[in-house]
Formats: sequence, structure tokens, C-alpha cells
Amino acid sequence: MRDQLSQTFSALADPTRRAMLSRLSYGEANISELAKPFMKEMSLPAVTKHLKVLEQAGLISKTKDAQWRSCKINASPLKDATDWMEQYRQFWEESFDRLDDYLKSIQLNKKTKGTKSGHSKTK
Amino acid sequence: MRDQLSQTFSALADPTRRAMLSRLSYGEANISELAKPFMKEMSLPAVTKHLKVLEQAGLISKTKDAQWRSCKINASPLKDATDWMEQYRQFWEESFDRLDDYLKSIQLNKKTKGTKSGHSKTK
Repeated sequence: MRDQLSQTFSALADPTRRAMLSRLSYGEANISELAKPFMKEMSLPAVTKHLKVLEQAGLISKTKDAQWRSCKINASPLKDATDWMEQYRQFWEESFDRLDDYLKSIQLNKKTKGTKSGHSKTK
Repeated sequence: MRDQLSQTFSALADPTRRAMLSRLSYGEANISELAKPFMKEMSLPAVTKHLKVLEQAGLISKTKDAQWRSCKINASPLKDATDWMEQYRQFWEESFDRLDDYLKSIQLNKKTKGTKSGHSKTK
């Protein structure tokens, strides 16, 4: 059996499943509502298979609201995956800092050159 | 060809690859250094295959530092994946808020009961 984090990332590694989660972020939806945007490109069993992957990873769960079987988001695995990613935040912040320094140095360089050419004109 | 986000999540969906990224978060490492913790459980070609998955997803890149071929983390795909996850933050924050409210209501209930039993004793 795969660890929870691997299951979460694996379930998210598909644009259809991410689109389904995105739809569920607006509120609960039943299976046919979730399937609707994909019916031109895939069969209902294929849609159900995607939902099963999300469910097995614990990212969604089925609720029984009256006669409709709805799905809703479970946030906990997403939180754990985000917490895992957060440990690498320093790397992208560092690289943006470096980019920022580089852009500042270019601007400073341009200004210095501008001042120099300004001086030459007044000569 | 898979979209970048799917490639990122797919590359992260493996504990060995996550461990390799974790090692690289301490600094650049060459292939044999990265392979060392896994040599009991897997072959060098298997290790190289994992590194190739990380490289193809853009999560690591090879640097040529003197005679050593080192690997280093590329933060950009991790940032994009974290940004994608962040849109779901409200869901886990909401569920923690609900848990918080529930725990507060339990505490309040206990206090009220405590006060009531206190009153009965003084009667």
C-alpha cells in the first residue's frame, strides 16, 4: 500500500481530477454534475474511475443528501501535501530574491549610464 | 505530453524521489551521494531512473561543478504546485475553525455544568 502523501500527489497528477476538485471547491456535486464537462472526451466509467482515485486518496468523500449521492472535498490530505511543499519555500523565495537583486542591479546600471550620458551632453 | 503541474505531482508521488529532494534541500549532491541511502533496497539504474523523473519534471537539474556532476533543486515547479494547492486553503482552515468551535463549545459546556453542580452543593 502506498503512503498517504504519495497517494495524494498521484491523485493530483491528472488535469481531469484537478478539474473535478476545482468544481467541488464551489460546493458539493453529484456524479452526473461532475461528469458533465468531460462527457465529450470520456465515458462515464472513465469519469467514475477518476472519482474513485480521488476518493481512495481521501481527497473527496461521498455524502448522502436526500436521494442524491453527492461528493465533497476533504481538505486534510491537501493540507498535509501543502505542509510538505512548504519546507521548500526558501528555495523559490531565494531564487526570487536573486532575480529581484538582478533586476535592481540592471536598473541601477541604466540609471548610472543615463547620468553619465547626461553629463556628456552638458559638456 | 503531460502538463507541467501533472508532471510535478507525478514526480512527487514517490517516497524515494521525495527523499532525494529532501537530501538536495541541504545542498547540491552528486549521483552517488544521492544513491547511497537507497543502495540496499534498489539498483543504481533504478536510482538513476528516479533522478531522471525528477529532472524531466524540472524539479532538479544537473550542474557541472569541476569533475563532479552534481544535482540541485529547481524551486519553480514546487512554487507553482504550492500556488495551486493554496486555492484549497480555505477548506482546511474552515474545518479547523469548525473543530475549534466544537472544542470551545465542549469547554463551555463543561464549565456550565461545573457551575451548576457548584450551585447544587451550596444549596
